[in-house]
Amino acid sequence: MLLPTITDIREAHSRIKPYIHWTPVLSSQLLNELFNCSLFFKCENFQKVGAFKFRGATNAVLSLTPEEKRRGVVTHSSGNHAAALALAARMNGVKANIVMPENAPVVKKKAVAGYGAEITFCKPTLQAREETTRMIMEKTGATLVHPYDNFNVICGQGTASLELLDEKSDLDFVIAPVGGGGLMSGTSTSVKGINKSIRVIGAEPLNANDAFISFTSGTLTPSVNPHTIADGLLTSLSELTYSIIKNNVDEIYTAKEESIIECMLLIWERMKIIIEPSSATVLAIVRENPEVFRNKKIGLIISGGNVDFRKLPF
Amino acid sequence: MLLPTITDIREAHSRIKPYIHWTPVLSSQLLNELFNCSLFFKCENFQKVGAFKFRGATNAVLSLTPEEKRRGVVTHSSGNHAAALALAARMNGVKANIVMPENAPVVKKKAVAGYGAEITFCKPTLQAREETTRMIMEKTGATLVHPYDNFNVICGQGTASLELLDEKSDLDFVIAPVGGGGLMSGTSTSVKGINKSIRVIGAEPLNANDAFISFTSGTLTPSVNPHTIADGLLTSLSELTYSIIKNNVDEIYTAKEESIIECMLLIWERMKIIIEPSSATVLAIVRENPEVFRNKKIGLIISGGNVDFRKLPF
Repeated sequence: MLLPTITDIREAHSRIKPYIHWTPVLSSQLLNELFNCSLFFKCENFQKVGAFKFRGATNAVLSLTPEEKRRGVVTHSSGNHAAALALAARMNGVKANIVMPENAPVVKKKAVAGYGAEITFCKPTLQAREETTRMIMEKTGATLVHPYDNFNVICGQGTASLELLDEKSDLDFVIAPVGGGGLMSGTSTSVKGINKSIRVIGAEPLNANDAFISFTSGTLTPSVNPHTIADGLLTSLSELTYSIIKNNVDEIYTAKEESIIECMLLIWERMKIIIEPSSATVLAIVRENPEVFRNKKIGLIISGGNVDFRKLPF
Repeated sequence: MLLPTITDIREAHSRIKPYIHWTPVLSSQLLNELFNCSLFFKCENFQKVGAFKFRGATNAVLSLTPEEKRRGVVTHSSGNHAAALALAARMNGVKANIVMPENAPVVKKKAVAGYGAEITFCKPTLQAREETTRMIMEKTGATLVHPYDNFNVICGQGTASLELLDEKSDLDFVIAPVGGGGLMSGTSTSVKGINKSIRVIGAEPLNANDAFISFTSGTLTPSVNPHTIADGLLTSLSELTYSIIKNNVDEIYTAKEESIIECMLLIWERMKIIIEPSSATVLAIVRENPEVFRNKKIGLIISGGNVDFRKLPF
């Protein structure tokens, strides 16, 4: 299995830089006082399509050969990756096919359609999604861009922490959320490639703790039907992301649902920025482990800001 | 009546600069495309206490004589000005007395108390508020810091557009919301003092349009019991703010409630920042008057970001 290196991530950054936002690193004196540490939030909620996913999708599209570009890309997703791939493809004149479950929220269907992608609906099962995707690949020759089990996607996601360390290099910790592990794989490769002494931490909802179990048991163990408010973190690690995380990540901590909700509210109220529940997980583990993080300098990857305002947990 | 000049505002800025945040000026390509113009949002939702009010309150506190500082300050307000004065006073070792109606929201009482102010509750009428305030002034010798009918407060509020023009000088328009007129007075003095050719526009809810009526009729005409989602803009102009606005402002436009709500949602969804309804009024008038603003460069003062998430209008 080919694992990405810091060189791959630096190359990805040069490639995608003209297309992405270099997002800001924000601080809050009030949150620093509340948690007795120095927090540096890398705000990918301000990234295009409102999530870090645009980095990986753009790198995947730009890494296609001319012939592959002509045939288009395909993915199955109802979340941020679908919108990210749709926009990245459109910006590069590539056709995007998105397979979505027929019961996906209307707002997500609209977002993807708005970026000019062709949507194919399927039954809301993993099997139906994979079969429909395979069918499209056979018919069109489109290249599959998996949301996280993809070398180029992982390299793109790693560019967020590359920028973070460029602005703030003297960190003790970098924390990123863990779902399928694409962001965590990119982040850990990036951080350890720049400075091995920075501890890299994964933040996972307790209710979807497959990465924690896999990491501590030494055996890849997917979640079964997890339920968490952090709806971007329901997916499980793949062989590829598990291998990278095993090599590079120092620790995975889990966060309780009430911590995630409380930290989401804290960031909304105090920092006046909109983040999605998945992003609050990184602050939730700081809140739950004060002895680990006291007086430390901590970089936190805020993964995105796409929220349904009609379904707020507070 | 002594009206402030650009020199007063520059002096206020030097005075308050060590205490305030120099807030960012943000743009959104998507909103620019949607409204066919270039929008530059001066984000006072990121100011301390989450609103521009901290500028005026800080300038008022720093302008006190040593003897006045010893006797403290007092104001009656249940909103952002109360929290702003409480914090500005605490940061300068000055005692703050805040008169609040007994039915003020618990969250606002807590915020003010959290900044160490002494709260005196009164019946929820203007008469009770003014009497209670007068009583405290007589008893303690505290200086009244009115939310907007105050020279030093107005000079402080004007520093937001001073910073905006420092970063982005070639604007065609600057738009600020109008409530009691403190921000509008400071903004218009500041902008016209720097560049007379920039048009200064007031944005007011149609449902609380006292400034529009006063401005167009030439007679100061307070609102009677106005109702609008923009709860920071319920107050009416004073003699002082009316005089300044009459001299400096080019036009006042009103915005419908549905425009205010739609623009608030647009900014939340697209810019991922939390703004209060009053702040959305500035974008709402751009939305309602496309022929005026097409292809123009527009600075917009986002007044604050203090929102009750349990009472969202969308």
